[in-house]
Amino acid sequence: MTADRASVDPAPIRIDLNADLGEGVGDDEAMLTIVTSANIACGFHAGTPADLLATCRAAVSAGVRIGAQVSYPDRAGFGRRFMEMSTPDLIADLVYQIGALDALARSVGGTVTYVKPHGALYNTVVHHDQQADAVVAAIRDVNPGLAVMGLPNSVVLARAERAGLPIITEAFADRAYTPAGTLVPRTEQGAVLSDSTEIARRVVEMTTTGRLTAIDGTVVGVAADSICLHGDTPGAVGHARAVREALARAGIEVARSRS
Amino acid sequence: MTADRASVDPAPIRIDLNADLGEGVGDDEAMLTIVTSANIACGFHAGTPADLLATCRAAVSAGVRIGAQVSYPDRAGFGRRFMEMSTPDLIADLVYQIGALDALARSVGGTVTYVKPHGALYNTVVHHDQQADAVVAAIRDVNPGLAVMGLPNSVVLARAERAGLPIITEAFADRAYTPAGTLVPRTEQGAVLSDSTEIARRVVEMTTTGRLTAIDGTVVGVAADSICLHGDTPGAVGHARAVREALARAGIEVARSRS
Amino acid sequence: MTADRASVDPAPIRIDLNADLGEGVGDDEAMLTIVTSANIACGFHAGTPADLLATCRAAVSAGVRIGAQVSYPDRAGFGRRFMEMSTPDLIADLVYQIGALDALARSVGGTVTYVKPHGALYNTVVHHDQQADAVVAAIRDVNPGLAVMGLPNSVVLARAERAGLPIITEAFADRAYTPAGTLVPRTEQGAVLSDSTEIARRVVEMTTTGRLTAIDGTVVGVAADSICLHGDTPGAVGHARAVREALARAGIEVARSRS
Amino acid sequence: MTADRASVDPAPIRIDLNADLGEGVGDDEAMLTIVTSANIACGFHAGTPADLLATCRAAVSAGVRIGAQVSYPDRAGFGRRFMEMSTPDLIADLVYQIGALDALARSVGGTVTYVKPHGALYNTVVHHDQQADAVVAAIRDVNPGLAVMGLPNSVVLARAERAGLPIITEAFADRAYTPAGTLVPRTEQGAVLSDSTEIARRVVEMTTTGRLTAIDGTVVGVAADSICLHGDTPGAVGHARAVREALARAGIEVARSRS
Repeated sequence: MTADRASVDPAPIRIDLNADLGEGVGDDEAMLTIVTSANIACGFHAGTPADLLATCRAAVSAGVRIGAQVSYPDRAGFGRRFMEMSTPDLIADLVYQIGALDALARSVGGTVTYVKPHGALYNTVVHHDQQADAVVAAIRDVNPGLAVMGLPNSVVLARAERAGLPIITEAFADRAYTPAGTLVPRTEQGAVLSDSTEIARRVVEMTTTGRLTAIDGTVVGVAADSICLHGDTPGAVGHARAVREALARAGIEVARSRS
Repeated sequence: MTADRASVDPAPIRIDLNADLGEGVGDDEAMLTIVTSANIACGFHAGTPADLLATCRAAVSAGVRIGAQVSYPDRAGFGRRFMEMSTPDLIADLVYQIGALDALARSVGGTVTYVKPHGALYNTVVHHDQQADAVVAAIRDVNPGLAVMGLPNSVVLARAERAGLPIITEAFADRAYTPAGTLVPRTEQGAVLSDSTEIARRVVEMTTTGRLTAIDGTVVGVAADSICLHGDTPGAVGHARAVREALARAGIEVARSRS
Repeated sequence: MTADRASVDPAPIRIDLNADLGEGVGDDEAMLTIVTSANIACGFHAGTPADLLATCRAAVSAGVRIGAQVSYPDRAGFGRRFMEMSTPDLIADLVYQIGALDALARSVGGTVTYVKPHGALYNTVVHHDQQADAVVAAIRDVNPGLAVMGLPNSVVLARAERAGLPIITEAFADRAYTPAGTLVPRTEQGAVLSDSTEIARRVVEMTTTGRLTAIDGTVVGVAADSICLHGDTPGAVGHARAVREALARAGIEVARSRS
Repeated sequence: MTADRASVDPAPIRIDLNADLGEGVGDDEAMLTIVTSANIACGFHAGTPADLLATCRAAVSAGVRIGAQVSYPDRAGFGRRFMEMSTPDLIADLVYQIGALDALARSVGGTVTYVKPHGALYNTVVHHDQQADAVVAAIRDVNPGLAVMGLPNSVVLARAERAGLPIITEAFADRAYTPAGTLVPRTEQGAVLSDSTEIARRVVEMTTTGRLTAIDGTVVGVAADSICLHGDTPGAVGHARAVREALARAGIEVARSRS
């Protein structure tokens, strides 16, 4: 940034905070006082319609925007198992889920504004062309104004952009990164951070610099419109509060991303 | 009708024909060439999202309007078993179903224009105040322009009217009626008609006179905006064709009811 | 107890303690150190096969006997909603559940020894002849050596006895009783007790005297082979420990009932 | 075969015929008059407990042995989609299914005597070590006397044999074979045969010679204890009858395989 641009009173840095809600685990009420985007389950990996409606109502009440957290049809596995899906099957399953959640949201004065794939589907569409295309097709079929939330550099976001859908990139507050800028797999030592202060410090670092110290000490670029805060891990609410407070102290505005 | 009214060129008699589709039984394709309203399952008693999407596409293609056939959450029982449901649970289940089907319909250029409860829910809301109220509340929550299809004189239609929702009354082509104008229970002798000619004759009788010969020979009033044609019984398509042809011969227009 | 009776060396008083486990709520591990009977869900109201297998393994490991907690097919409602069920449907659903859980139990060295209906089914078979008969028929079809656990004076236990099945009567540690010896409905004031000391005192009272002070102060007979300890309410483990300790202090043996 | 062995009156050639039943498609009743082994669904890809019980009853009545046709937990996809499954999840799902079906079978005087994976699971365990091992572990956990039915040379049968489980190899009556002795994929021209006479001729050829003419005209070895007859394709019952009659004419005994 040059001195010239600084002199014209730059927009404050702003960041969106998102969390998975409506899964029947974790303290949704507390998280809704911290985040600006609620990824709400759609009944395919968790949640009854009554649960989802209650979560939509709480999100609307808290002024938090609603995203449809769509999943493989796998309640028994909480959507965490890869499934082979034909394109027509996957499109139909996603249109069904987004439509169902949107109707629930609208019935309490809200609306679905973005879609975030859940669990195994989230990980699959990072690299799986056919399923990524199906996700994009489904979202466009429902409403081309809906944004797609996902990993930077994922296939699904690339396809979404090409299809003209708004995208929301996200980074993870409590996860270690590899030197390549990807997440350290959960099965490895040090993959998940548990110290609130450190988690909060990293979020401020990412947000202000677009960079982060990877697990091997190198510095990697991590550009994100939104930071994912886990709502269901031990200490989740404490971590989330620490992040929000650290952002406030750093003068960073916490607000919905523009897409 | 007086001679005077006749002289001012009355509107032709018109009647809507509806059938349950998307349940994975019966010949949906053939029925879509005959009916004007398709009651499409929403996945709670039958149908995968891919099935429902295909049925919506076929209905749109055939110019047949789409109704959401909502059900108790009971796939194992095909929605045919009464379930006790709290008002919030039932409302959420119905909003979810209508929203899901409407999104599928819209993705192929259609839209849900009415709601018809299925199976045990259909029978329950004829008399059950709490569930009838929940059905009406759910439909109004989604869209107060959606019509409710049901039995004349049922509690659900009375509540729907009071709530300002459009209603569609229906009669059954292949069922015998009691002298009180209600359906003869399926468990009784003669409850279900199986002769195409007789079925067609009765539909014309109901449509032109608003009356029908009951099982005991007395004449009862049966006013209906739509006639339900079963799509999954033996000879269903044959009966449906006979009805459509008899209506044509009698000069009765087969068209969507106005609500 | 008189000196005379004491002189003939009576059997010590013994009581069984049971709790609902494998539902994915509550602290199953802690409860298994306290109870002697584990009512394990069978997947129709809660629990995946993997959850149920883990609970069976833990029960076997703790030396706790296993009961099949069978339910209506209603995961969304946690089995808490009445469902109309034909006799063949209900029998098949129950045989399926008992067989599934028994196979899981046997694969880890245990076996199902009794059946306890869950939720709405439990309450229904207190008075509903048709469903009570179906429960008894299903259990007998699987294994006439399986005991039925339920409320004293319930229809299901009466039918079970007549059919020659062993029965296990149960009382509730944390519930108030009416003067008629039935449970005060949860919706009423004072229906659920929350003081560990009082709960423990009442269990000792019931166990040693067969009587209990009802909510209106009168004394009612409450004969039970087993005491149900809730595992999923706030303070559940604390209440359960207090009960177990109070029984120990009173010299009452906690052991599986003989049926 | 030497003249000596022939002179001591050799056992007649015998072959088992199997078909998938209880899926709610096809004419189960007719197929039960033809086959000697019924692969009965267990509710994870198709069938309610009441359906399965009725099919078990019909199989027992027809003197046809019962196999558990186990599946991924994927009703919406009819078990035809690959799912990633951890070993504990897959074992638990299979033990649950086998136990459930066995209890249903026993309640009507039958018993499960073998296990046949269904759909995508069937195809996966031909080559997938981890899932094949889980299938074998699950069956052994339930009952090491249960046989495993599958493709000759599949990983699952190799592992089953090593674990000491009986195996049943099967061939397909209506499928073309590659020169390597594997099935021509359904997506290729000529993969599925539709002429009853030809299907019957090939079954007799396989059964008497252990060889078959592959799609390219070469002769391949196809050793099988059982022949799978599809029960749900157009003309299925006709093909099955033709096979049974051709075997009778050829003097081949149709009987359960010995394992």
